[in-house]
Amino acid sequence: MSIVVVGSVALDTIYTPRGSVEDALGGSASYFALAARHFTDVHIVAVVGEDFPAEHRKLLTADRVHLGGLETVPGKTFRWAGEYTDDLNGRKTLATELNVFETFHPTLTPEQRKCSTVFLANIDPELQLEVLSQVENPRLTVFDTMNYWIASKRDALIELMRRVDVVLLNDEEVKLLAGDWSLPRAARKLHELGAKRLVIKKSEHGAALFDHDDRFFTPAFALENPLDPTGAGDTFAGGFLGYLDATGGTHPMQFRRAMVVGTALASIAVEGFSPALLKDATRATIARRVDAVLQTMHCPPEPLWPA
Amino acid sequence: MSIVVVGSVALDTIYTPRGSVEDALGGSASYFALAARHFTDVHIVAVVGEDFPAEHRKLLTADRVHLGGLETVPGKTFRWAGEYTDDLNGRKTLATELNVFETFHPTLTPEQRKCSTVFLANIDPELQLEVLSQVENPRLTVFDTMNYWIASKRDALIELMRRVDVVLLNDEEVKLLAGDWSLPRAARKLHELGAKRLVIKKSEHGAALFDHDDRFFTPAFALENPLDPTGAGDTFAGGFLGYLDATGGTHPMQFRRAMVVGTALASIAVEGFSPALLKDATRATIARRVDAVLQTMHCPPEPLWPA
Repeated sequence: MSIVVVGSVALDTIYTPRGSVEDALGGSASYFALAARHFTDVHIVAVVGEDFPAEHRKLLTADRVHLGGLETVPGKTFRWAGEYTDDLNGRKTLATELNVFETFHPTLTPEQRKCSTVFLANIDPELQLEVLSQVENPRLTVFDTMNYWIASKRDALIELMRRVDVVLLNDEEVKLLAGDWSLPRAARKLHELGAKRLVIKKSEHGAALFDHDDRFFTPAFALENPLDPTGAGDTFAGGFLGYLDATGGTHPMQFRRAMVVGTALASIAVEGFSPALLKDATRATIARRVDAVLQTMHCPPEPLWPA
Repeated sequence: MSIVVVGSVALDTIYTPRGSVEDALGGSASYFALAARHFTDVHIVAVVGEDFPAEHRKLLTADRVHLGGLETVPGKTFRWAGEYTDDLNGRKTLATELNVFETFHPTLTPEQRKCSTVFLANIDPELQLEVLSQVENPRLTVFDTMNYWIASKRDALIELMRRVDVVLLNDEEVKLLAGDWSLPRAARKLHELGAKRLVIKKSEHGAALFDHDDRFFTPAFALENPLDPTGAGDTFAGGFLGYLDATGGTHPMQFRRAMVVGTALASIAVEGFSPALLKDATRATIARRVDAVLQTMHCPPEPLWPA
């Protein structure tokens, strides 16, 4: 079992009310891989420039993370800068420099094509479709996107949505894609357009799974002092797919448990800047956090009225 | 076992994207009582004017709802008018006419003073304190409030918060009262100020229980076509306290189950205008909705990694 993730490896400059970092390791593939590698092998397919720091490559070098598909090309690495509002729920993008990411054209190696799970992180949906046509009989395929592509390449996204097993978006993206402000109604509309399972990230409000009439909700793990929410969604995806890939799960209960794993890992990621905390998390730490999340949703049934 | 609820019985004029009603039965005590009466006896302590329609009194007349404390005095009934935004998450108050509610001064009968549960719905916190001094040895006391009182009578609210067993507010009110935008941190601050259990309503995002480090979250029941959210919070309170009063529960698991019951009843209430749907709900309907909510949070634990 193994995952191929196609996405970004980036240099992030981040301002939060509690601190800032400059040119830290970022990107969807980085967060995803350092979360998923606790459960399965992960092959990163991404591109960086010649300026990509050796210490960042070292951060990404971890057990079960395969960097053979991390291409270095002439030019500068993708850079993103953003500033969070006081409550961390809003953020302003200060700068996006695509640099070498602008001409990124992923071509998978024979080994990557055989991966059992495919995660198409947020890139141009036409490239995501190309990657999907390269993989050979994966067990589970998932894509993420962003508002920019929903506005500019909706048809490609709908096509992608029909072809993958799981659509993984945040609540705003689901509403925008469906054109409906009600999340359950938006989910229904995406199902009608051909989506199979929908996993919807809701940041501080947790995550939701809509599989037609089967619905499941996980709360977020309530942190009193989150530091940096950057990468939380990709970390969630990494925990979610890492667990599913490792267990070979297709049962609805395994999908639910995978969401709790994603929630737990995301909560670890937002406790620090950059994906370093994820990399260093031990199995014991992760298991404790998963238990803590499960504890906040535990409610055994019992008759409401005396018989 | 029985509950005394001190609050409002009102005439509501409501505009929503899917319809409107004029002078419908409203008020915190109405919603609360018609929810709680499915589990226990409820004594309403409230006031209406001579214009209070006979058909509304008939709506309130239900098994286990005691109207002896619903005083009729010269003048007009409390009226509220509001308009909801398209997504039902925002609302604009168009008019508030306190009328006879302005001079409401609740005095409990000996029977009401002996109730096992006391719900102080949103009224002037000084009146809430007065009611609290009238009751004799209740097992469970709970108060709700609104932004207006948080801004104008904070000291009385803090005093109240220390004296009751459960603080029942919405997320915005908790943040405002604590002066902190982070919900877990705001909850911690209210604990430090003397609050015991906090039950926090988060509308479409469900509800949260904070009992120091013990936390529990229920998702909302995802409705595709909610009609009118008016009274959802008081309905939640009615289900929550009705269940707790009936079961005499003090165990944390009973508090959790009570939150699920509140969630289920609130979801029934928002499917229609006015509390009529609540009144007519059968035990079978309520039990099915409770099961449906529990189903959306069900995730049995299992080892994350093979042994």
